[in-house]
Amino acid sequence: MLKKTHLAIFLCASSLFSTASNALEKVDLLIKNAAVLTMNEDKTIFQQGLVAVKGNKIIAVTNGEDIKNYQAETIIDADGDIVMPGLINTHTHASMTVFRSLADDVPDRLHRYIFPLEKKLVSRDMVRIGAQLGNVEMLKGGVTTYADMYYFEDEVAKTVDKIGMRAVLGESVIKFPVADAENAQQGIDYALNFINEYKDHPRITPAFAPHATYTNSTETLQKITKLSLQHDVPVMIHLAESERENQVIAERSGGKSPIAYMAEIGALTPNLIAAHVINADDNDIALLKKYDVGIAHNMSANIKSAKGVAPIIKMQEQGLRIGLGTDGPMSGNTLSTIDEFNQVAKVHKLVNQDRAAMPPVDVIEMATIGSARALHMEDKIGSLEVGKLADIIIIDTKAPNMVPVYNPYSALVYSAYAANVKHTIVDGKVLMHHRKMLTVDEDAIRSEALQFADKVRKTVIESGEIVQ
Amino acid sequence: MLKKTHLAIFLCASSLFSTASNALEKVDLLIKNAAVLTMNEDKTIFQQGLVAVKGNKIIAVTNGEDIKNYQAETIIDADGDIVMPGLINTHTHASMTVFRSLADDVPDRLHRYIFPLEKKLVSRDMVRIGAQLGNVEMLKGGVTTYADMYYFEDEVAKTVDKIGMRAVLGESVIKFPVADAENAQQGIDYALNFINEYKDHPRITPAFAPHATYTNSTETLQKITKLSLQHDVPVMIHLAESERENQVIAERSGGKSPIAYMAEIGALTPNLIAAHVINADDNDIALLKKYDVGIAHNMSANIKSAKGVAPIIKMQEQGLRIGLGTDGPMSGNTLSTIDEFNQVAKVHKLVNQDRAAMPPVDVIEMATIGSARALHMEDKIGSLEVGKLADIIIIDTKAPNMVPVYNPYSALVYSAYAANVKHTIVDGKVLMHHRKMLTVDEDAIRSEALQFADKVRKTVIESGEIVQ
Repeated sequence: MLKKTHLAIFLCASSLFSTASNALEKVDLLIKNAAVLTMNEDKTIFQQGLVAVKGNKIIAVTNGEDIKNYQAETIIDADGDIVMPGLINTHTHASMTVFRSLADDVPDRLHRYIFPLEKKLVSRDMVRIGAQLGNVEMLKGGVTTYADMYYFEDEVAKTVDKIGMRAVLGESVIKFPVADAENAQQGIDYALNFINEYKDHPRITPAFAPHATYTNSTETLQKITKLSLQHDVPVMIHLAESERENQVIAERSGGKSPIAYMAEIGALTPNLIAAHVINADDNDIALLKKYDVGIAHNMSANIKSAKGVAPIIKMQEQGLRIGLGTDGPMSGNTLSTIDEFNQVAKVHKLVNQDRAAMPPVDVIEMATIGSARALHMEDKIGSLEVGKLADIIIIDTKAPNMVPVYNPYSALVYSAYAANVKHTIVDGKVLMHHRKMLTVDEDAIRSEALQFADKVRKTVIESGEIVQ
Repeated sequence: MLKKTHLAIFLCASSLFSTASNALEKVDLLIKNAAVLTMNEDKTIFQQGLVAVKGNKIIAVTNGEDIKNYQAETIIDADGDIVMPGLINTHTHASMTVFRSLADDVPDRLHRYIFPLEKKLVSRDMVRIGAQLGNVEMLKGGVTTYADMYYFEDEVAKTVDKIGMRAVLGESVIKFPVADAENAQQGIDYALNFINEYKDHPRITPAFAPHATYTNSTETLQKITKLSLQHDVPVMIHLAESERENQVIAERSGGKSPIAYMAEIGALTPNLIAAHVINADDNDIALLKKYDVGIAHNMSANIKSAKGVAPIIKMQEQGLRIGLGTDGPMSGNTLSTIDEFNQVAKVHKLVNQDRAAMPPVDVIEMATIGSARALHMEDKIGSLEVGKLADIIIIDTKAPNMVPVYNPYSALVYSAYAANVKHTIVDGKVLMHHRKMLTVDEDAIRSEALQFADKVRKTVIESGEIVQ
């Protein structure tokens, strides 16, 4: 732990403050008595530290000795609990909460069940209802920013705007008819409208989301790449995920891997966020590095579908931008990346036959500043540092599964679950306090989701289409 | 789902009740509006069922149509939540909660860190303090019965007696000096005294716990086997867990596997509960079947230490008695088997390269009636059936991660975590209600554990012995 060195630095800063003047610094929010995991470059930890917030920004992160210099509108006494950057979920389909646990574990599930199910049931209403529930689940699990790929993303955007979260929202583009577009071109047009509508939103980044290489033509992928650079918006895609994809792309490209094909057609750019990236050899990894692509690692969904384990340790060695994602609730099946920590740490140890592989600190890095890097947002979020946006979570260390904490990274990775998140703050605003949602009505959101679930039961379960 | 068939059966039973007489059946506890997962042989589910309890036994499990026949002292309205058998943790070292997250992920951890740490810090007090915290963690995570291996098990027994849980408690026997014995013979004597003291306890089964084959002599293992049959008590052991064990036993036995060696020396019996069992070939599995040995599968600890994955699917095919365990909190690191469900389901899919492997219903079976079988207690616990002991848990299905529930097994395995357990009932008594502990003071227990953690910090962290 780096506490001692940093203690010295901050004692110094603190005394500078007090000699400068006797005027108190007015802040909007002060979190005190905090075991602060800054996740800055030095991984500084303050055992009894503070975080001060003015407007939507962090203005101080210290060892707490300067506490008397602040006059705060709101004070949260963390009582020794862990205070850390909000989690960033780099890949999900939040609206699919209403389909959670439908037809789990069946072979060729995407083509046999998910696409037909979506054709029947995806609508503006479904997207809104599912996203509302997903947002609540994420905020209660400490996720403050998420990257979403789905249909009717303008509906998702409305729910994000209302609840107060941060999100990168990618409108899907796919070659066959879907709920909000008849073909890829209509998908692109839908996305462009959405991008124009949300390009100046303070918390929402609109994006393109071509579903995958094998569900889009080369022309579509190239068109989206060009438009994304022109509008300076992200592109999200499922990449190097499945055998089917490998086959289709090998046929299309004369034997290339999906990643090499993307490089060849000019679709690997720093705007790209690639989800899964399971089937990546050394050459593929070098290409991802060369084009500065962001990676969303979805361990839980990838092993549930027996697709394999992404070569994340190799990617770390090459310095790629790697974040954590949950995938959608038909795949993951939950939306807080806390639920992934354990699996990420342990499965990499198993497949590398090395108990020292993927230590807890690496998992927490991946979940915070690493995820910010994957979204190319590391200048704004992902760590608790002066000048960054105030996306902060507080983790209850008094729950019996968390007692005692000798090493906070280890406790978070091997012991914590989503319900250990006590408070969630986004953009300087407390959105969940003592597990109560402050900006939306959780009961009403659940009721709407349960009503929609009844419709799902009537449409696909009672008809025998999906056997549960 | 078997709902329809069973609905018919129970409609019939219900009308028999009402024609028999108008007298109401007086019960102590009635759980109504319950989505009952019985985990009986047919895996019957009642969507709006009831469970009635008299004294410490279940006297009715029905579809709920007979609800008017009961007059209950206490009624719990499950409001549609999942009601299921209490979870059974077949392998742990509960007292080690006070060492949780110490020196995680270091090589040769048992011999370099854990044994020396225990030599310094294990005491009657430590065992009591750690077990109290472990009990609370388990009850709050839905564990109603656990199988423990540690020192001073009479101290663990006192905590189990007080809180009201059920447990199989194994006093350790090991060849080198430990906190409560100088050698194996003293360990056996300690265990015998403990067995005599607790042999008639209604909820506690005292047992022998020889640590492992390689930490005990053949003579000791044979002596314990003989005594266990004589006193009709279980024997718990770590078996087929590590490379070091393979080597030591191969040298001792002329090349035999640990399981084959145990068979040869006569130490495989139906009284044995073997934890881990990672290194088991077809011959080993056949021996475990022949001698009707119980198996405790500890996925989370086994992959964290990169030791590998036990061949559980092969064992299932051979009809072995397989339960779930968490291992101790320095290994697991949590004590509710709910935290294992996800990993058990998914890692078996990964290593078998088959997304249909280890379906959720198999995981729930392993966690309930399977674990009861592993402890040879399937006639008493593990399912909700008339005549069984009333160990029952209720799972909150309104938490956002649990909405909606199309398939209860899938929701439990892929979405639930320990904090979704709402009420825990053991032996007919409600021990946790709306997550409040009713028989112990959780705050006092946490305080004592945190005080002990300070002692650990002073003894081994501040001295630099363990680097965190």
